[in-house]
Amino acid sequence: MTTIGASLVSVGEGEVEIIVPFSEALTQQHGFIHAGVVTTIVDTACGFAALTLMPADAAVLTTEFKVNFLSPAKGERLRAVGHVVRAGRILMVCLGEVFAEAGGKSKQIALMTTTMMVVDTATGLRD
Amino acid sequence: MTTIGASLVSVGEGEVEIIVPFSEALTQQHGFIHAGVVTTIVDTACGFAALTLMPADAAVLTTEFKVNFLSPAKGERLRAVGHVVRAGRILMVCLGEVFAEAGGKSKQIALMTTTMMVVDTATGLRD
Amino acid sequence: MTTIGASLVSVGEGEVEIIVPFSEALTQQHGFIHAGVVTTIVDTACGFAALTLMPADAAVLTTEFKVNFLSPAKGERLRAVGHVVRAGRILMVCLGEVFAEAGGKSKQIALMTTTMMVVDTATGLRD
Amino acid sequence: MTTIGASLVSVGEGEVEIIVPFSEALTQQHGFIHAGVVTTIVDTACGFAALTLMPADAAVLTTEFKVNFLSPAKGERLRAVGHVVRAGRILMVCLGEVFAEAGGKSKQIALMTTTMMVVDTATGLRD
Repeated sequence: MTTIGASLVSVGEGEVEIIVPFSEALTQQHGFIHAGVVTTIVDTACGFAALTLMPADAAVLTTEFKVNFLSPAKGERLRAVGHVVRAGRILMVCLGEVFAEAGGKSKQIALMTTTMMVVDTATGLRD
Repeated sequence: MTTIGASLVSVGEGEVEIIVPFSEALTQQHGFIHAGVVTTIVDTACGFAALTLMPADAAVLTTEFKVNFLSPAKGERLRAVGHVVRAGRILMVCLGEVFAEAGGKSKQIALMTTTMMVVDTATGLRD
Repeated sequence: MTTIGASLVSVGEGEVEIIVPFSEALTQQHGFIHAGVVTTIVDTACGFAALTLMPADAAVLTTEFKVNFLSPAKGERLRAVGHVVRAGRILMVCLGEVFAEAGGKSKQIALMTTTMMVVDTATGLRD
Repeated sequence: MTTIGASLVSVGEGEVEIIVPFSEALTQQHGFIHAGVVTTIVDTACGFAALTLMPADAAVLTTEFKVNFLSPAKGERLRAVGHVVRAGRILMVCLGEVFAEAGGKSKQIALMTTTMMVVDTATGLRD
């Protein structure tokens, strides 16, 4: 996350927000931020959101995600919001949204749903 | 939808709500409403939501959906809400949620994201 | 599965095949077999495939699936094949394919990926 | 793709293979290659596979993908294979698989399904 200049701007119970300023280094051939970057940011927001509801010594593992890409990722910065829709003992389901922001306006550009697994770091991977 | 006793309870611009009362005929071996029924209801809610934003002579086609099942589908009735997240000329992305309701309480049991295709009925299938 | 006339035609280690003959009762407004039926068949094939690799007293729970619909479901019968791509202790990932068959020809009409959870029936649901 | 050291090793009709050698720069905190990198490689393999079946002046756009992560991405190199399951005029559905290879052995670590849109570069984005 450091590499792409991301910062955590808000951490609530089951909800996390991440901001990434636009940078040339993150763009693909058309000048938009690469889908891989968009995906990584929102996956991270969802993972942190899940972590806020887990025991202190737990780690989080993405078992699957799906992303619908809605619009090109361009603007001054990207804002990704992840929140937990279901918090189980083993599995957590999160919803993630990514917005492109510029000139005070915000437009949703991606939608993610993901299943996170709670990993017990004392005993190693759970599965 | 008639077969499973579903009824449209609300139709707004880009958002549709469907209610299905619990019935023995819809349950699987554990007494819960079958995942196939849950999926069909929320796919239908999303499809109708997409239709509200399409030209009058257009039809809608589900090209893909993903469902995360959050909890067993039990209660007095299911409520499915579909709304359009992105309305394109050809593709519409919708988010669907299903709630199990009983005794005045509501619990989310499923989360769907789906891509609907706008089909021009004058010229037939688009793809 | 009885209701829709489905039959298991092949059960191997981690792979299961289900056949459903075409019937008017399964069709939607355009005369094609309903997406909900297609989904249910392939979800079932994947679930049984996962069961073949689980302990004898385990049950299976679909935690999520995604389906891409490739072509209309029409023909003499549908054939769904589910096989396990990853068999974990808690989670199993399966790939499912549905084919429409008629006149000795076969055409793939749907593609599913799904995560199944191993449920210990002695202790109840795992999550 | 250059940045991560990826190379196209095989391009067939509707099927493309990409190899990425293991490198420290691609790993996350546990020493595995980051899920974002895995996703980008297989998305690219699927996109190129779709391109092989499109008109010469068309471009490709990922509208959605889902990835199931099966095992940690470690080894000497990753191999991603994308192939087209359905080639439509507007939409193409692809299946992607990623393998971690080391010491002559190969293990599948990720499974992707994706919908690619055919973009007419003469007229701009299609949707």
